Amino acid sequence: MNSKKLILVTNDDGITAPGILFLSKIAKQFADVCVIAPDKAQSGMGHAITLNSTLRIEQTNLHHVNYEYSCSGTPVDCVKLGVNKFLDRKPDMILSGINHGANLSINVIYSGTMSAALEGSIEGIPSVGFSLCDFSIDADFSPCEHVVKQVIEKMLSHKFTEPVCLNVNIPKLKADEMEGIKACRAARGNWIEEFDERKDPSGKPYYWLTGKFINFEEGNPDTDLYLNKQGYVTVVPVSFDLTNHGQVKNIAKLFN
Amino acid sequence: MNSKKLILVTNDDGITAPGILFLSKIAKQFADVCVIAPDKAQSGMGHAITLNSTLRIEQTNLHHVNYEYSCSGTPVDCVKLGVNKFLDRKPDMILSGINHGANLSINVIYSGTMSAALEGSIEGIPSVGFSLCDFSIDADFSPCEHVVKQVIEKMLSHKFTEPVCLNVNIPKLKADEMEGIKACRAARGNWIEEFDERKDPSGKPYYWLTGKFINFEEGNPDTDLYLNKQGYVTVVPVSFDLTNHGQVKNIAKLFN
Repeated sequence: MNSKKLILVTNDDGITAPGILFLSKIAKQFADVCVIAPDKAQSGMGHAITLNSTLRIEQTNLHHVNYEYSCSGTPVDCVKLGVNKFLDRKPDMILSGINHGANLSINVIYSGTMSAALEGSIEGIPSVGFSLCDFSIDADFSPCEHVVKQVIEKMLSHKFTEPVCLNVNIPKLKADEMEGIKACRAARGNWIEEFDERKDPSGKPYYWLTGKFINFEEGNPDTDLYLNKQGYVTVVPVSFDLTNHGQVKNIAKLFN
Repeated sequence: MNSKKLILVTNDDGITAPGILFLSKIAKQFADVCVIAPDKAQSGMGHAITLNSTLRIEQTNLHHVNYEYSCSGTPVDCVKLGVNKFLDRKPDMILSGINHGANLSINVIYSGTMSAALEGSIEGIPSVGFSLCDFSIDADFSPCEHVVKQVIEKMLSHKFTEPVCLNVNIPKLKADEMEGIKACRAARGNWIEEFDERKDPSGKPYYWLTGKFINFEEGNPDTDLYLNKQGYVTVVPVSFDLTNHGQVKNIAKLFN
């Protein structure tokens, strides 16, 4: 049995994205690495899984790690396939990203990057989703290096007694401009959608989802949006327990 | 301004599914109704939204309600389009389903039905996802009628001070065999995936996601899995706040 640690790396921007190439390069300094990532961009896929069609897997040779495969499915499919089908042992950690763009506040729920990490923790594997707050395809990931290394080291050396999934957002700053790493909670916020209506050549309408994000907690110093803006790397622990425990009693009264 | 209540109805099985036809028929006994639902099955879509392609909308005439549209997108897209684009006023409630099959325990996170309802509560609208624990396309929805009516009545008459999303699972029983309605929490459980590997005509492999569900809390009487099995309609309040608040302090220690 191989006693070397094993890290599964995935993302939602697709296996060729600069962010995942950067992440796998760092991960292999710490462990054996398997990359299983979508063969195309899968942003906004949330916790989708592929039930109504089949999945394809292709070996690739982009990451120069122990194994690498592109997958026709979603980020969560990639984690399920890796853990349950393609890996010879259970990974010690799952890393997702580095996402091209922030995943702060409510955006975790729509994010393929974070859903892949959350799926990892559902499988009982400590997991981290990384996002750089810079949407550009030419984003400079090098300032992320010391953050990613520190998180991997802490996660691999700590023994967790319960499922752990971390949402790490790295501000668009030079390494020496960052204020440090802060654990916090997600700010309450939401999108005001403004569907962009266009006409196709035959005059029929179609729509692009677009919108404006509103922070409902502007200035609250214990939230990810505030701290990230202040130059901190934010770390939010994320839960897959969706029961609103505080409401169970009140809802019970409603049906008495 | 129209003072009549307005209910938005959607699902993940598609606008032609028997479950949503049944649900819209009951909803219109209580309010104006708009149906906006996917034009095809979208099971397992979780909280996916359509960012990388465009959305199409078509008027339909299946439900005989105030407005009805099929949408090329996901269940969550349907809610966003309804609330932000197509409705002349904010709905008083969003109903999703009735899903053909259970959405108990961890399955909420993968469910398009429940993600649509959750999106409703993110928008500040009381929302309910209904599921009948019977996967058959020929499922008999008539025993659901008294449950759905009771839930709609309670939800429309109650003034909630915080976002509410309910996950209602109806056992596959005759109406007079059901034990009643119980509010509870989701049981901890997970899928042991077993990918079904097949070969296409050219010999290349492809995969179907399949698996076996494991209840980690067999026999715990305050869980949805237990109560549903006992013949109760289970009602679990669901939260979109994904921060694991109990872990923030411990994670902070890790990065000190």
